[in-house]
Amino acid sequence: MNLDLIFSAAQEAFLSYKNLSGSKKADFLEKIAEILEENRSAIVMMAVKESNLPEGRINGELGRTTGQIKLFANQLREGSWVEATIDPADPTRTPLPKADIRRMLIPIGPVVVFGASNFPLAFSTAGGDTISALAAGCPVIYKGHPAHPDTSKFVGDCISQAVKKSGLPDGIFTHVEGGVKMGQDLVKHPVAKAVAFTGSYGAGKSLFNIANDRDEPIPVYAEMGSVNPVFTFPQRLANELVPLAQSYVSSLTLGAGQFCTNPGLIFVPKELAGRFENAVAEALQGAAGSPMLHEGIASSYYSAIDNLKTRSELNWVKVPDAQHLINVSPALAEIKAADWIADDLFQQEVFGSFALMVVYENEAQLIEVAKKLHGQLTITIWADSSELKANPELINLLEEKCGRLLFTGVPTGVEVGYAMQHGGPFPSTTSANSTSVGAHAIKRFARPIAFQDMPADLLPDALKDGNPLGITRQVNGKFTVEKI
Amino acid sequence: MNLDLIFSAAQEAFLSYKNLSGSKKADFLEKIAEILEENRSAIVMMAVKESNLPEGRINGELGRTTGQIKLFANQLREGSWVEATIDPADPTRTPLPKADIRRMLIPIGPVVVFGASNFPLAFSTAGGDTISALAAGCPVIYKGHPAHPDTSKFVGDCISQAVKKSGLPDGIFTHVEGGVKMGQDLVKHPVAKAVAFTGSYGAGKSLFNIANDRDEPIPVYAEMGSVNPVFTFPQRLANELVPLAQSYVSSLTLGAGQFCTNPGLIFVPKELAGRFENAVAEALQGAAGSPMLHEGIASSYYSAIDNLKTRSELNWVKVPDAQHLINVSPALAEIKAADWIADDLFQQEVFGSFALMVVYENEAQLIEVAKKLHGQLTITIWADSSELKANPELINLLEEKCGRLLFTGVPTGVEVGYAMQHGGPFPSTTSANSTSVGAHAIKRFARPIAFQDMPADLLPDALKDGNPLGITRQVNGKFTVEKI
Repeated sequence: MNLDLIFSAAQEAFLSYKNLSGSKKADFLEKIAEILEENRSAIVMMAVKESNLPEGRINGELGRTTGQIKLFANQLREGSWVEATIDPADPTRTPLPKADIRRMLIPIGPVVVFGASNFPLAFSTAGGDTISALAAGCPVIYKGHPAHPDTSKFVGDCISQAVKKSGLPDGIFTHVEGGVKMGQDLVKHPVAKAVAFTGSYGAGKSLFNIANDRDEPIPVYAEMGSVNPVFTFPQRLANELVPLAQSYVSSLTLGAGQFCTNPGLIFVPKELAGRFENAVAEALQGAAGSPMLHEGIASSYYSAIDNLKTRSELNWVKVPDAQHLINVSPALAEIKAADWIADDLFQQEVFGSFALMVVYENEAQLIEVAKKLHGQLTITIWADSSELKANPELINLLEEKCGRLLFTGVPTGVEVGYAMQHGGPFPSTTSANSTSVGAHAIKRFARPIAFQDMPADLLPDALKDGNPLGITRQVNGKFTVEKI
Repeated sequence: MNLDLIFSAAQEAFLSYKNLSGSKKADFLEKIAEILEENRSAIVMMAVKESNLPEGRINGELGRTTGQIKLFANQLREGSWVEATIDPADPTRTPLPKADIRRMLIPIGPVVVFGASNFPLAFSTAGGDTISALAAGCPVIYKGHPAHPDTSKFVGDCISQAVKKSGLPDGIFTHVEGGVKMGQDLVKHPVAKAVAFTGSYGAGKSLFNIANDRDEPIPVYAEMGSVNPVFTFPQRLANELVPLAQSYVSSLTLGAGQFCTNPGLIFVPKELAGRFENAVAEALQGAAGSPMLHEGIASSYYSAIDNLKTRSELNWVKVPDAQHLINVSPALAEIKAADWIADDLFQQEVFGSFALMVVYENEAQLIEVAKKLHGQLTITIWADSSELKANPELINLLEEKCGRLLFTGVPTGVEVGYAMQHGGPFPSTTSANSTSVGAHAIKRFARPIAFQDMPADLLPDALKDGNPLGITRQVNGKFTVEKI
């Protein structure tokens, strides 16, 4: 596989694709969704086989995948995402006349996307990263995850069919296979302009370092997961103890705990710790072992737990059942908040259904916890309204540590919509000011350009006086859909 | 100076300042502008003395400084910059009810700002970086540039007065002095969340590397300048040869060439090169030597030119007059496009009034040039309308290489407005998706957060159902100022 040829085709495709209208790009994206749907049964069969995930989940995940394609298509048809900003000329201004300046977002160029192991469809070949890059106007060089090679290649072929049927150049999408070295070579290639990744901290951070060491550094949007703490307060917990415990366990064990938003850390008030722990332990009894994605991931789960077992601060409520090659069972350990605060090790993610229950003495201790907490994708607060009112300082601190703050429900089951934020402060991602889920994800692959005194016939439609796209623009500082 | 104390005060100030309303932040910013105006004569006298820049320029620069403060204050009062995005709940959705998700931008935390030598006011203590960070809701730790220590300190005191008069905590703004080591220590401090810098490639890139090597990497918004190429086409040039030459020389020699947008590179068609060169040389006769900011900068200018003089590809039309310690005169050299293309050295910025005139054979050669060109803050095209129409490929390529594309006028004299983009692909900046001038600069210091099922009384005003701020929001994908 000659990467120079691949990137050169991508760059050439970029120079035409970037100027395609939003509605034509939307047609192309919907063509991808259509071809995926046509091949639903084949794709689902392949993905189930390669991921060990149940058919219901994979069917749902394909729905989510085509759903998010439609979200980006809608966003392209609506068109305002380019943030058109227009400061018209003022030739009469003194002492100097004012030039006409018009700014909008344009795509950045070829993007390297890495497939994730835990979402063989929604975060893989035709997943959110690929589709948001294509939506922005960027060609994608996609490296399939070795855990599901057939699914990856098959879906890649579906995208290539959509490219052809839409009359677009082949270079818009290229499916690449390979291991660590291939991934590094892709990130190092001088034509690459950005990288999107979902996976482990180790792999994500290493790609981030490589990208920054290039002659021309490029942004790496790496979503590296987190422990997604849940903070529980006594009144709310006392009122809903069993349902909250069940809800917590459902989220913890969903997909064998293999979600980026898996709630691996829960803070429980001392006075209710015993009761809540019992309720969780009981709910866990019902959660049989479930198969992880592959042996490597299962083996990492056991190693991480074995490593924690050497720590005397932990009290084990439930250890995993006998170590199966792939089929793993949940685990639960308890620790005092003071001990948790004392060592960053206890913040490390154990990928899988492992819960660390931290028993806190009082609310003052939660402030210490919040200050110490690393960046997270999500934080969940289970408190009743009087408890929320009594803890503004904590909520204020927790905002600083996450990309999404929940007040009911559980962090798994990320909505794909306009308002979703799936990202957060380091180390949960390498780019806290971006999201990898939801409509705003498109902006990762765009950058602003200003045109000064550009002749009217050259202006992109988004910036034309007559506003032919009918988009919301900022004109002289005011948001409007009006013509100029 | 104890940096731990400084950052700890900044962090504490942040936790209250971040929640201040937009209109109160605007009041505070305008208080800064007011105090600067009250001290105009003292500030101007100090800055003129320390920068060698003429009083008219410094007076204008103070106007620009207070003007941009007002721009950010207006933006805060308008309030839509937080990109409020609301996907209301849908409890009736099947198979699962939909949660209420509301997203907005929030400030990132304490920001380290470096003052620039070439703008002792507008890009220094109370300059665009400081003010946009304060506008976003971030405290600023500002390191003054050693070239204008008194001005820096005095303006810093003005800001601190405004902090006091506004009843805000002292930690919102701290003025720090020091050299390279101090700058590095500031960037390394764990409480710092972002860095803003305007200056040389060497210094900016070094801060970028330090920030990425931290345990928690943070973004560095470094604007490192560029050579701001001007592409001239024969018909336009023939029609306006002398005025364009004069316009070019005015821009080249403005402020002794010490602007980030100084047009140090100009492409001229072979058939008109001689005539245009004469016209430029003539205009340069009238441009007397002017004082640079300090001896170090003047000395770098001479060294860079001495270095270029060793290259046989260059034909010198004008060399600097005798080397004065500070007072330097412009220089002009000519090179063939084929030679320019062959060596990246000819793309390096010479900070000062040095112009490299590249003589091209034909338009096909400009395509080669465009492909080879490094990232730039600006690119200017001087072509008549038939020439523009005949060169879509070139314009398409040049878009990829700059943050602002001009069709009339010169790149110096950057407008401070809503639509300005002052930034560009690497190496002109470390962050092509941001601007350091204009209203969008505020977004460098903000990141998104989503609140899921947040109780109504806790929601920030920007996200409340009733839209009490009257801002433009995206609700279910539609932009609107309506209530929900």
